[in-house]
Amino acid sequence: MILKIDQLPIELPKPNNPSPNNAAAVQELLGGKFGEMSTLMNYTYQSFNFRGRKKLRPFYDLICSIAGEEYGHIEVVSYTINLLLTGASKRGMDPTTTPLANGVDARNTYHFIASGQSALPVDSMGNPWTGQNVFSSGNLKLDLLHNFFLECGARANKMRVYEMVDDPTARTMVGYLLVRGGVHVVAYARALEKLTGVQVTKLLPIPDLSNDPFPEARKFMDNKLHLKLYSFSQDDYKQAGLIWNGPHPEDGQPLEFIHGAIPGHTPPDLEEEPQLNAPGGEDFDPQMFADMAKKMGINYAY
Amino acid sequence: MILKIDQLPIELPKPNNPSPNNAAAVQELLGGKFGEMSTLMNYTYQSFNFRGRKKLRPFYDLICSIAGEEYGHIEVVSYTINLLLTGASKRGMDPTTTPLANGVDARNTYHFIASGQSALPVDSMGNPWTGQNVFSSGNLKLDLLHNFFLECGARANKMRVYEMVDDPTARTMVGYLLVRGGVHVVAYARALEKLTGVQVTKLLPIPDLSNDPFPEARKFMDNKLHLKLYSFSQDDYKQAGLIWNGPHPEDGQPLEFIHGAIPGHTPPDLEEEPQLNAPGGEDFDPQMFADMAKKMGINYAY
Amino acid sequence: MILKIDQLPIELPKPNNPSPNNAAAVQELLGGKFGEMSTLMNYTYQSFNFRGRKKLRPFYDLICSIAGEEYGHIEVVSYTINLLLTGASKRGMDPTTTPLANGVDARNTYHFIASGQSALPVDSMGNPWTGQNVFSSGNLKLDLLHNFFLECGARANKMRVYEMVDDPTARTMVGYLLVRGGVHVVAYARALEKLTGVQVTKLLPIPDLSNDPFPEARKFMDNKLHLKLYSFSQDDYKQAGLIWNGPHPEDGQPLEFIHGAIPGHTPPDLEEEPQLNAPGGEDFDPQMFADMAKKMGINYAY
Amino acid sequence: MILKIDQLPIELPKPNNPSPNNAAAVQELLGGKFGEMSTLMNYTYQSFNFRGRKKLRPFYDLICSIAGEEYGHIEVVSYTINLLLTGASKRGMDPTTTPLANGVDARNTYHFIASGQSALPVDSMGNPWTGQNVFSSGNLKLDLLHNFFLECGARANKMRVYEMVDDPTARTMVGYLLVRGGVHVVAYARALEKLTGVQVTKLLPIPDLSNDPFPEARKFMDNKLHLKLYSFSQDDYKQAGLIWNGPHPEDGQPLEFIHGAIPGHTPPDLEEEPQLNAPGGEDFDPQMFADMAKKMGINYAY
Amino acid sequence: MILKIDQLPIELPKPNNPSPNNAAAVQELLGGKFGEMSTLMNYTYQSFNFRGRKKLRPFYDLICSIAGEEYGHIEVVSYTINLLLTGASKRGMDPTTTPLANGVDARNTYHFIASGQSALPVDSMGNPWTGQNVFSSGNLKLDLLHNFFLECGARANKMRVYEMVDDPTARTMVGYLLVRGGVHVVAYARALEKLTGVQVTKLLPIPDLSNDPFPEARKFMDNKLHLKLYSFSQDDYKQAGLIWNGPHPEDGQPLEFIHGAIPGHTPPDLEEEPQLNAPGGEDFDPQMFADMAKKMGINYAY
Amino acid sequence: MILKIDQLPIELPKPNNPSPNNAAAVQELLGGKFGEMSTLMNYTYQSFNFRGRKKLRPFYDLICSIAGEEYGHIEVVSYTINLLLTGASKRGMDPTTTPLANGVDARNTYHFIASGQSALPVDSMGNPWTGQNVFSSGNLKLDLLHNFFLECGARANKMRVYEMVDDPTARTMVGYLLVRGGVHVVAYARALEKLTGVQVTKLLPIPDLSNDPFPEARKFMDNKLHLKLYSFSQDDYKQAGLIWNGPHPEDGQPLEFIHGAIPGHTPPDLEEEPQLNAPGGEDFDPQMFADMAKKMGINYAY
Repeated sequence: MILKIDQLPIELPKPNNPSPNNAAAVQELLGGKFGEMSTLMNYTYQSFNFRGRKKLRPFYDLICSIAGEEYGHIEVVSYTINLLLTGASKRGMDPTTTPLANGVDARNTYHFIASGQSALPVDSMGNPWTGQNVFSSGNLKLDLLHNFFLECGARANKMRVYEMVDDPTARTMVGYLLVRGGVHVVAYARALEKLTGVQVTKLLPIPDLSNDPFPEARKFMDNKLHLKLYSFSQDDYKQAGLIWNGPHPEDGQPLEFIHGAIPGHTPPDLEEEPQLNAPGGEDFDPQMFADMAKKMGINYAY
Repeated sequence: MILKIDQLPIELPKPNNPSPNNAAAVQELLGGKFGEMSTLMNYTYQSFNFRGRKKLRPFYDLICSIAGEEYGHIEVVSYTINLLLTGASKRGMDPTTTPLANGVDARNTYHFIASGQSALPVDSMGNPWTGQNVFSSGNLKLDLLHNFFLECGARANKMRVYEMVDDPTARTMVGYLLVRGGVHVVAYARALEKLTGVQVTKLLPIPDLSNDPFPEARKFMDNKLHLKLYSFSQDDYKQAGLIWNGPHPEDGQPLEFIHGAIPGHTPPDLEEEPQLNAPGGEDFDPQMFADMAKKMGINYAY
Repeated sequence: MILKIDQLPIELPKPNNPSPNNAAAVQELLGGKFGEMSTLMNYTYQSFNFRGRKKLRPFYDLICSIAGEEYGHIEVVSYTINLLLTGASKRGMDPTTTPLANGVDARNTYHFIASGQSALPVDSMGNPWTGQNVFSSGNLKLDLLHNFFLECGARANKMRVYEMVDDPTARTMVGYLLVRGGVHVVAYARALEKLTGVQVTKLLPIPDLSNDPFPEARKFMDNKLHLKLYSFSQDDYKQAGLIWNGPHPEDGQPLEFIHGAIPGHTPPDLEEEPQLNAPGGEDFDPQMFADMAKKMGINYAY
Repeated sequence: MILKIDQLPIELPKPNNPSPNNAAAVQELLGGKFGEMSTLMNYTYQSFNFRGRKKLRPFYDLICSIAGEEYGHIEVVSYTINLLLTGASKRGMDPTTTPLANGVDARNTYHFIASGQSALPVDSMGNPWTGQNVFSSGNLKLDLLHNFFLECGARANKMRVYEMVDDPTARTMVGYLLVRGGVHVVAYARALEKLTGVQVTKLLPIPDLSNDPFPEARKFMDNKLHLKLYSFSQDDYKQAGLIWNGPHPEDGQPLEFIHGAIPGHTPPDLEEEPQLNAPGGEDFDPQMFADMAKKMGINYAY
Repeated sequence: MILKIDQLPIELPKPNNPSPNNAAAVQELLGGKFGEMSTLMNYTYQSFNFRGRKKLRPFYDLICSIAGEEYGHIEVVSYTINLLLTGASKRGMDPTTTPLANGVDARNTYHFIASGQSALPVDSMGNPWTGQNVFSSGNLKLDLLHNFFLECGARANKMRVYEMVDDPTARTMVGYLLVRGGVHVVAYARALEKLTGVQVTKLLPIPDLSNDPFPEARKFMDNKLHLKLYSFSQDDYKQAGLIWNGPHPEDGQPLEFIHGAIPGHTPPDLEEEPQLNAPGGEDFDPQMFADMAKKMGINYAY
Repeated sequence: MILKIDQLPIELPKPNNPSPNNAAAVQELLGGKFGEMSTLMNYTYQSFNFRGRKKLRPFYDLICSIAGEEYGHIEVVSYTINLLLTGASKRGMDPTTTPLANGVDARNTYHFIASGQSALPVDSMGNPWTGQNVFSSGNLKLDLLHNFFLECGARANKMRVYEMVDDPTARTMVGYLLVRGGVHVVAYARALEKLTGVQVTKLLPIPDLSNDPFPEARKFMDNKLHLKLYSFSQDDYKQAGLIWNGPHPEDGQPLEFIHGAIPGHTPPDLEEEPQLNAPGGEDFDPQMFADMAKKMGINYAY
């Protein structure tokens, strides 16, 4: 089970300009083969399916902790897409003004027809994420090798999307993911090291470029975010600390395992898009809620 | 973001017998168009994408709360599948004994080849779950109508899987889901009522059969589980209580909104399946962890 | 079985200009999840699969009648796409002039490679329509709820495509579909009302915007086309009139059930596109047909 | 546009026994790459997309006529599947008796979970029909060649499904389709002959076996059904007779072109399956309809 | 089994300019339904699956020979795509310069994210090639008819891509494929003629336009490349010469069967794209290889 | 380009009994995500797409050599499937005897309907192989890591299929693939070692079980087949020997690089299946070929 926190792991700046095509490109990091849906679901299913946990519980706890973090990643990529799409068409209630004309030439028309200028679990070509992206063989060494490869592939995708999009919202988000995905790369490499004794971390970085040339990533590393693994749990998964320890393979600073979640930030308010009837509800009378809220002692204001 | 809890919402009995084909049928409730992956991901994306939250926050909070519960549902369906598959082939390390012979005629060969006799995000025909199953139009009334329909369709699927499989693990799980899915049916019906004034709950039950003839569901209803909506959050989503209140449409008992998660149960231990090298790791020396655990004050025993 | 009528339900104006990207956007209304292929096939399969028809025949007849109309809808959307694509590349027989250069940057290259600048059963991203879009549970209440939701979702898609495309061909067609789709929304809402007694029509309009701000739709409503349900049969499906009656939920005018098809219009002639060898047949000698036609008393002129 | 006729082109015998796996195999003839959905949709889209009709109208009319017939083919295959599935599980309203136990080992679990023991647009492996199966190049010669190949491939599939299933419902249906599909094979071969002068009909039969060894087909041929092409229209498509004439390539009897539809038969009543809540509606009071029917002069009895 | 030759069948000129959208269009000829992946895989599987070879070996040998050639076709299309994508973004190692900005509006973002500006087995819309494109019925006449149709469809696609793209690399490649695909069209037509006696070659050309108006094709025909079928084997498939003989159906020149492969050309060097870390390996010390090469007598220079 | 050799790399024994379900399971090794289609196509595309070859040519040559071998692997898996399906239904020309009755309950009905009891590029659930399985990032380190993981995953699949199927044809084939796939595992591990200096081979075996307990694999290892890498080329790819050298990581014997192909064996004759019209051609007169063969000096006997 999970407890939700209505917060994002970072504060997302507003985009300079709405950009449907930037949003479309960023979708690769959400619903692509190497997107956050894939990392989330791979580790989630591997955790459910983990056989013979006792002796190997530190590995189970590591996979569970990382799975927990990935949820925040689908969230932060989705909000980035949503911000890039906010204001991307003409606001208003009159359909004859062709308010969605921008959508015709846009790379992802689903953003204008299926969703209300918002994120969908699809990739940069609009192809849906699929369960075929989940690998869960049950063999720990093979699953860890998969995860190590998956994170490296995901890292390549992040770097390339960064190079495509110069918007500050997208770059802040990608910088953050490069750092946190970098933690996961190291975590699975360390897990393989613990399991086999082979110095897998020496293969890093894959691809060959480090995170240093990405200023937005560097900022997070200056705050030591590349050194910390979070359990994303109040009480569980503490044995992950048996794997996440020792020096960081790239800068030698000490790795740190932390119970709980990354400190969070209120998610951005997404403005209404009346030309999409999103959210609609013009006839709805909030006073009904206000009255009831007062009676029930619930905080509600409109 | 989320915090994970290493617990299931119910205690799952052991199956009477392993049954790959029962497991294959239950997959529909996980990765089918109306499976728990779909409910989880629909509400998750709708929550990320919700525009103009202020006035409509009770609806946002409701969707978020239900999204939080659905995670536990993919978990409990996955564990059911895993239990049904545990012991479903001949245990041992000698491949010449054809230990996986059972798998040849089984309905889902992925369970034996791709996974280690464990769950995958696929449906009862082995077709993968896909992001095409996510509906997120941004129009609140339409999204709520979708969710109401989705939950009714999911209810039909649950009833039919129940009628296919008489194993106690599966039936306990489905009984639970019928009750909790029933809560979500009512929740979305109530949300539509609050938004429009139309008495949508009077359409229930859909399909026409109530939960009463399902003894495993009745047991949970005797514990009033059909009356309670949980926020699945420590601090957030409290305005969902402005929608979830009043009498239950079927038995008239008072609906109750509860902060936090459903009280949980330790998930079952999944036995090793050595013929699948799941989890493998025979050469791994746990003493290394034991020593380190002692030094770091972490609880580890093997 | 069916009898075909070589006519469209409306007269389609010629586009102001060819526009491949407008055509690509309109494809969503043909082959999208909420396109006319989906409405056609959902009701068609539900009609084949309807169990226990006797007592419930008015519902069967209603579904059959609407299924009949949907065929004309895939037709009119296809012709709209075909008109938007006619003349969209350089006409002529010399391939070295790069006559299809326009196609390279177009949103849907299939229009230039797979088809002869004409419609395909794909959506606005070029993804094919799939049988997964058909819902046919066999439970009448659930199927009707599905259909009601499907039509509302389809309505949202139509409104959004209208807002994307200002071409008169497309807008005339969408205006027509908004009105006729509106009839189907009301029809399924009425059917649920008859079955359950709940005032489902009060939920309308979904999404929140009515058809009034769409001038092309208003024109059809001025002709009372939003009030009439057609049986699309010479002799059958007459009991649909037991559901389609009473006042229209939005303007209170009396609903009217009509035997037969909507009065039709000759479909537009689609010009040749020689650079695509569409239709080719330059060597074919029509005189052979002319001679034979004369002998057989068949009307043929070239 | 179309007019529907609530009749099947043949009278379907009842199956000897319900058989889910026979039904699953027959699905290939409905939703397979060479199934009736494919023939229907190929000719339908080719007809919408036909450029430069004037000189080539006999070809247009031929394609339209055959498209018209194919609708009756998806219908008759669907009813065959429905009859094979009727009674395929235990009837009753008590879910605890595991009434759908049969479904667990069945080849197509969608028949028991997604549909109410009824047809779906999927193939014999449960994979959905897809718009990728539609070929519409706009070049007449190529489209006709495609159609000729498609019908030959469809014929091979029909022969093989016949050889898999000995049920009289299925065999009657396949026998009928072999004869009518045989008409379409000849029709497209003749069309190619008219267009090019090449004696394409001499390639027949493809595959090498004729329809003679199929007794159910022979019965229809005894009634000369292999000689007749129907326009499936009241007023249109008459120029198809310019192609469909002369002697049949296999037995030399004269081909005959007929205006209108094949004489029809009332479709079978599909019994209720209460364990699937199909159709449900137990609470529905038909007297309401009866009263209204009386008032409106509509024929309704329950 | 195969032996590889590190050569292309033609010399590819460099493109005038990099062009991601031209590359995207050319993908249809690689991974489209009628692309070279399809021809390669159809004939490959048909050859593996060929039953009763003895009497029919000339047909087997023909299919094998053509299958052998198709490998070179996926190769030459891939290199064309690679050349069109080389230099299509800004070279350099600094991600902050947004070197991949071009990719955002490009038709195929996979070229920039998934691949290193290089070919993928997808079509012009980025949809992946699929095994559903393989037809292998086992009936020789039907398989040959399929292959004949497939080659005609492929020819139409080639002509249309030629008309879309005026780049010399692409046009040289398409000109070559038109000629060689033309050989395959004739080969399958001849095979049908041998098998049935029907003059299938008289149907040509399909589509109606010959290869003559394509100057790049004409150049290859001047070298008689349209007359020669190669066995693509050192020792096998010689009986294909029993089918490939006689006069060419379009110009009457004698067909010629040749043992072995088409004379080849060194493939172009693909430049590094450092902004994609393609190929990376900056830290790799080639001296290690140089030393070892010297010792082992292997030719290696850097 | 390639030259084909009409030989298999091993001699395949005949199956003890035909077995459609064993054949269906073996399909995973052909068309599954980790099947031979995937290894073949991954390395093939990586070789086409390899940028900056000069310094890194040994890696290019290694990938090309392995790509060459994989073609023989799709061949040997296909023949295994074909042998398992030969005789799997009742032979004869009378369809009324229901000769394909076996197919109804079989796991893969495509084997009986789409193919002539022969292989298709699909997996063990009948899902088609897809181009999404190809990874080609252009970054050498990442591509090699992918290939290493892919081969380990493929190895797990082979081991599991071995454990499912005790037929000697299948086991001989899988034993062979385990050895040769094992060569590829080591080859990519060695390549990573050469590129990075990290002792990746020490991770082996993955999964944890070695090839020793597989008697059919052991037999090939006794012939030192686990030590030899073949160039699968007459003249090219010789620099692969700079990577493939030194001791084998498991038994310390010296690795050996060999120019050319593995010594081959005549593929088995696949018997006719007349009930499938495979191959048909009963009317074909081979004397025509015999006469021509004599005249042309070609070896043809029937």
